[in-house]
Amino acid sequence: MLFEITDPDDPRLELYRDVKDRDLTGRQGLFMAEGKVVLERLFTSPVAETVSVLTTPERLGGLASLPDAPVYMVPQGVMDQVAGFPIHRGYLALGRYAPKQSLAERVSGTTARVLALHGIANTDNMGGLMRNAAAFGVDGVLLDTTCCDPLYRKAIRVSVGGALEVPHYRTDDMVGTLTGLGLTAYALSPSGAVTLEEVTPAPRTAVLFGAEGPGLPAALMAACQTVRIDMHGGFDSLNVATTSGIVLYRFRL
Amino acid sequence: MLFEITDPDDPRLELYRDVKDRDLTGRQGLFMAEGKVVLERLFTSPVAETVSVLTTPERLGGLASLPDAPVYMVPQGVMDQVAGFPIHRGYLALGRYAPKQSLAERVSGTTARVLALHGIANTDNMGGLMRNAAAFGVDGVLLDTTCCDPLYRKAIRVSVGGALEVPHYRTDDMVGTLTGLGLTAYALSPSGAVTLEEVTPAPRTAVLFGAEGPGLPAALMAACQTVRIDMHGGFDSLNVATTSGIVLYRFRL
Repeated sequence: MLFEITDPDDPRLELYRDVKDRDLTGRQGLFMAEGKVVLERLFTSPVAETVSVLTTPERLGGLASLPDAPVYMVPQGVMDQVAGFPIHRGYLALGRYAPKQSLAERVSGTTARVLALHGIANTDNMGGLMRNAAAFGVDGVLLDTTCCDPLYRKAIRVSVGGALEVPHYRTDDMVGTLTGLGLTAYALSPSGAVTLEEVTPAPRTAVLFGAEGPGLPAALMAACQTVRIDMHGGFDSLNVATTSGIVLYRFRL
Repeated sequence: MLFEITDPDDPRLELYRDVKDRDLTGRQGLFMAEGKVVLERLFTSPVAETVSVLTTPERLGGLASLPDAPVYMVPQGVMDQVAGFPIHRGYLALGRYAPKQSLAERVSGTTARVLALHGIANTDNMGGLMRNAAAFGVDGVLLDTTCCDPLYRKAIRVSVGGALEVPHYRTDDMVGTLTGLGLTAYALSPSGAVTLEEVTPAPRTAVLFGAEGPGLPAALMAACQTVRIDMHGGFDSLNVATTSGIVLYRFRL
């Protein structure tokens, strides 16, 4: 469904207006995606559907496929004007988050890998974590209530669309949820009781990460096997996304 | 050597003026560091010396130690005015890069780990790479001429001072330099001939990474053992800093 639009005030462009300042996340489950690679992931996403696409006639042919949704083609100048800043990549899309399975369904097999996150408020780190979750085939991401939304535009971009590959779920009871799912939880911390190489992960495993700086609360650590990655000299911590890459690589199925 | 300064036009503050727009790197080998943790790393750095420090009287006591260099104390308002933007962290320092050993000296032992970088122009990625190099005790970082400077203010900050722990060196002949040092070079690439877990690293090893997107030139790959990290489904690449974390963790001594 292709539509050419030249009027920047066309009401069909309403949700693309001032995307820089507008936080769509949480409103009707909508989010904004940008860039060719991310849009192509959105079109085939198992956790989201495409609401509409905004691009230019020149860029249209650059997409490997088109979704079953309205595609609005506008001149580049109209695109920039509507969005409120230059959209150099030339591609925007609205998506709606709609994972088809619950976390319990996702981890119902004999093996499972869950990425559990506590207090990750930094969108760059969230994007990096979601990218690694997708790269290493994590079954689902479990977020506490203080994590930022993986569907913030910047988090999706940093994840290179990984946030649109792996389903995520919220919980206000991290330990209860992990226990209820029968997952063995490993918490990463510089003060972990054992080193990563000493761990033979259980078949059904969750790995838990906290924010750089504050780290994980003691109560959460106490409910997990705590694991550390030894570092050189006095250097005391890795970036949380990098740490997740190391752990998910080593624990991959 | 403590000096209280209240005049924003004091000439001793000259090099701190408009730090946002000024690129000190390359000028007399100077660079700008910011934040308490990074400054404390600078004061004990094996690759740099402290030229001077700029902070407020209130923040001075927050530093675990002071360097053998002038420490200028100014009111917060003067600091922001001189720097040209609010210095929320309250600490700036000028450093001079001065590694005491050549790369050949650094890798003269029976074991060695060198991080070799080609075309890393993104300061965030450079910072992440330097952070990992420090965390895993790399002996030195070898940069081709197209990499950005690890001493950009933002790269130092993202590295959490790792750029002030591990010496880096430039080369216009990457293969020749690695060969001349007698290092076995492994190049990371999604098209690598073997998987990371199949590799038993040589005692004296260099690991080579290129920029996300373009990757490594074929000529460089041909001179190395090429290594890949297998990923899930169609997800085709990890962030370069994350990848370096995985490889340096696995190859650590």
